[in-house]
Amino acid sequence: MLIKLFILSLACYIGESKNRNVLLIIADDAGFETEVYNNSVVHTPNLRALAQRSLVFSNAFTSVSSCSPSRSAILTGLPQHQNGMYGLHQGVHHFNSFDGVQSLPLLLGEANIHTGKSQSDLFIFELSNTHKNYFYVIFFSLIATGIIGKKHVGPGSVYPFDYAYTEENNSVLQVGRNITRIKLLVRKFFKTHKDEAFERRQKKEENKGDRDSIKDEERPFFLYVAFHDTHRCGHSQPQYGAFCEKFGNGEMGMGRIPDWTPEYYKPEQVKVPPFVPDTPTARADLAAQYTTVSRLDQGIGLVLQELRDAGYENDTLVIYSSDNGIPFPNGRTNLYHSGIAEPMLVSSPENRERWGDTSQAFVSLLDITPTILDWFSIPYPSYSLPGSPTDPVHLTGRSLLPALVKEPSSRHTVYGSQSLHEVTMYYPIRSVHQGAYHLLHNLHYRMPFPIDQDLYVSPTFQDLLNRTRLSQPTHWFKSLQQYYYRERWELYDTRSDPLETRNLASDPSLSAVLESLRQSLQKWQWETGDPWVCGPDYVLEAKLEPHCRPLYNGL
Amino acid sequence: MLIKLFILSLACYIGESKNRNVLLIIADDAGFETEVYNNSVVHTPNLRALAQRSLVFSNAFTSVSSCSPSRSAILTGLPQHQNGMYGLHQGVHHFNSFDGVQSLPLLLGEANIHTGKSQSDLFIFELSNTHKNYFYVIFFSLIATGIIGKKHVGPGSVYPFDYAYTEENNSVLQVGRNITRIKLLVRKFFKTHKDEAFERRQKKEENKGDRDSIKDEERPFFLYVAFHDTHRCGHSQPQYGAFCEKFGNGEMGMGRIPDWTPEYYKPEQVKVPPFVPDTPTARADLAAQYTTVSRLDQGIGLVLQELRDAGYENDTLVIYSSDNGIPFPNGRTNLYHSGIAEPMLVSSPENRERWGDTSQAFVSLLDITPTILDWFSIPYPSYSLPGSPTDPVHLTGRSLLPALVKEPSSRHTVYGSQSLHEVTMYYPIRSVHQGAYHLLHNLHYRMPFPIDQDLYVSPTFQDLLNRTRLSQPTHWFKSLQQYYYRERWELYDTRSDPLETRNLASDPSLSAVLESLRQSLQKWQWETGDPWVCGPDYVLEAKLEPHCRPLYNGL
Repeated sequence: MLIKLFILSLACYIGESKNRNVLLIIADDAGFETEVYNNSVVHTPNLRALAQRSLVFSNAFTSVSSCSPSRSAILTGLPQHQNGMYGLHQGVHHFNSFDGVQSLPLLLGEANIHTGKSQSDLFIFELSNTHKNYFYVIFFSLIATGIIGKKHVGPGSVYPFDYAYTEENNSVLQVGRNITRIKLLVRKFFKTHKDEAFERRQKKEENKGDRDSIKDEERPFFLYVAFHDTHRCGHSQPQYGAFCEKFGNGEMGMGRIPDWTPEYYKPEQVKVPPFVPDTPTARADLAAQYTTVSRLDQGIGLVLQELRDAGYENDTLVIYSSDNGIPFPNGRTNLYHSGIAEPMLVSSPENRERWGDTSQAFVSLLDITPTILDWFSIPYPSYSLPGSPTDPVHLTGRSLLPALVKEPSSRHTVYGSQSLHEVTMYYPIRSVHQGAYHLLHNLHYRMPFPIDQDLYVSPTFQDLLNRTRLSQPTHWFKSLQQYYYRERWELYDTRSDPLETRNLASDPSLSAVLESLRQSLQKWQWETGDPWVCGPDYVLEAKLEPHCRPLYNGL
Repeated sequence: MLIKLFILSLACYIGESKNRNVLLIIADDAGFETEVYNNSVVHTPNLRALAQRSLVFSNAFTSVSSCSPSRSAILTGLPQHQNGMYGLHQGVHHFNSFDGVQSLPLLLGEANIHTGKSQSDLFIFELSNTHKNYFYVIFFSLIATGIIGKKHVGPGSVYPFDYAYTEENNSVLQVGRNITRIKLLVRKFFKTHKDEAFERRQKKEENKGDRDSIKDEERPFFLYVAFHDTHRCGHSQPQYGAFCEKFGNGEMGMGRIPDWTPEYYKPEQVKVPPFVPDTPTARADLAAQYTTVSRLDQGIGLVLQELRDAGYENDTLVIYSSDNGIPFPNGRTNLYHSGIAEPMLVSSPENRERWGDTSQAFVSLLDITPTILDWFSIPYPSYSLPGSPTDPVHLTGRSLLPALVKEPSSRHTVYGSQSLHEVTMYYPIRSVHQGAYHLLHNLHYRMPFPIDQDLYVSPTFQDLLNRTRLSQPTHWFKSLQQYYYRERWELYDTRSDPLETRNLASDPSLSAVLESLRQSLQKWQWETGDPWVCGPDYVLEAKLEPHCRPLYNGL
């Protein structure tokens, strides 16, 4: 009886959700170097075509400008300080999310949304003809989950994918930049997916009694394709160029990616973002990055073609974004606009009203998990985490699906939270971006802002260091001294000052704005169980009612 | 044939090592409040008795003044920056050692030292009569490992104990402070150990052919008893007093520990360490701590009595120490002498020459792992870790066993390395203590020294804050302002200035000393794969030959 109830509820579930899949494409360190965002130089026909079937967000932001923390936030809907991934996952850094975190692949894999049963009930039970006295238990998840490319989060138990080709079992260049390999892995994912449904149908037809109880054998899927482009690689694989722009380009010793037609740009052609020094060195760096944009764009084209060929185009929500700002000064590892603004395309075959439109709504990568759960009609999870052991976690992001129908009127606030990148790069920042105003709180403002190894060795940064050392013009909008030593509070009017050059935190006419933003930020920190909520002047007393107690009174 | 070789080699091994066990007793936050170190007030007859059978080290130091990092260093022989346990293990901090670390329980559990085989060969194979065509594989370790009390390290796979009663499966108060419970758990460990040997003997006697191939059925053991006394508990269990000094004292609501006779001290009696403010509040705090010293001391007495009753006293190396400085200002979380000096007793039944003697040798808690490996004749491990992926780890600590025979002439250098405590308490310090001189490098010297939650709420610290706020005499040897804001480099002559009040780092007459110590420290950091080796002015370039590249040139 109980088993029948399961089958019935699962049938209902699969019935409702059939033909609803998700393809999430995340680029690595990619910015606005695409035709979609009016870069007229770089050639990205595939992203342009996707944009024509998407709502294009022009105010999308990551909550954290660092790879592993951002990917953990994308896959959990929780900021880094709440999910525990305070910095990079690999090597000596070895940050991880808390064991109890319920990530997207975990929630989708175990989703048993309509029965509301505990996790031990989350599997499909089938009666087997060959073992009449036993239930034959098939352990497979209700929504098939796959990852191809850069994973960079852990522990494995928190981020379980059914199908995984990542740096954990492959070369990251092969699964993250070799777009032919990626194409074939996507193809294999779809084939495996269909084969499994076919096998299940065959099994069901042997077992006639249950023939009509499951309407469709094919499970929904969530496929996460995480390109490694346009990340730098001069630090780890210098033989392929600063951005691995030579990897697979067909030149001697570079190998050849059959599906990639590299596109080359001259340094004088590139459009230098206003926050990057406009020097020949930076232009050469950007030109190399553009070449990798061509690989990313053509890779996206291949993945979308596989989706079409497999017949899923009209069933699949496609989301494209990136993890953090571009790896240039003032970009990645910063919570300035230039470090957190992200490309974001959301393409729903069910909502074509706004295809090709641009939304001004403020959205966050923290919205990706709620959006995908919403798409699958899965309720948001409620559970406890170490930061707030007595309070259940609730997702502070929101589904983007309503925006696909109608421009939202009330979305104008996003939050940021960064703690570390490399383990030696402790520089906690919390921020709130509300309408025109962007407030940043640099908790360790007395120490210089840290520079990551990958950026440090880049031609652009080395050139900036050398020019500074030699007192030559840097062609940068700030000095390294300003970049290293920041005010504790930074307040910018991003409409009149998009580059965030004039700190208005001590402007008396904005004291009410400042205070209101500080309160919003503090409220969000409490809501999300931020261990840094009392820093740097107060000590968190975590007992019973957590509160901040003053540390430096009288000093 | 291969199997016979195994049995032979194992027999040799067990033959050599039989009757050699280790009992490691670690107290929590305990200092020199014992008769052993000439505290004439506090009554510690059991530690005194142990000292009479021990070499007493008067210059023993922890390499890190924080609980989880110190316990990881004790159990791995690697400083926190090398084993990956950069801060506390529990809750939001969730630091862990690297997955590949070979800890003491792992090395002892898998020791197959005389064959030098790979780990897959590390188990005893026995021919079974009942399954004639199969080998019967018994998966049990060569040295039995047990832990009772506070574990506070992870991941579990790196610190596997055969027998474990810790905060992971019990109340830490019960396994760490209830000395009757601890006594019974020690008794149970010994009984289980003997029962297992008895069962093995019975099994062997059935299998007559192998009767003489294993001389003794009883395995050596490594038992780690980690008391939770004398840690504060006002922060987590205020109902039992500031130090849990009331827990189990028989008063209403406090329960009763049958084996504990609490001893009480008046505030005016206590001997205030010179680095603690001499105020009525601090004296009351210390008096409460003394009461928990009586529980610790009586607990140690019970554990040693169990050892005697089980017949192991003459086979067992006993080591007593603590993890870090006492939880008072200038103590725990500091690398000052007051934060790192530890009690250390080493009692070997095989080396009675120096029983009751005091050694002036500089020794480190990093020496505990080499000492125990030496005792069991197990070679030091060689393997790679993320901090130095191309170099094998080598233990920088040394066995203390030679000192039990003869005072060493050359031991006068120890190193310190602290990175965090709570995850919000980033304050990396590296230090070297060589003869009279103690050099500290505060990498984040521009930020105030952070205060942990546990210390913050303590009566002593609150009193210090209030006195500072009200401009009253603090009766402390430094001001809070000095305590918070430190020089980047601190150099002390600990002979003429044991309290470390006069920073000689800028004394021109000591510039050669300073430079020599800096070089020693830097060398040790490179040797131990320290990710912070280039901080704060340089960026580590980890490619090929790792080296530091300047960050702030010209600024």
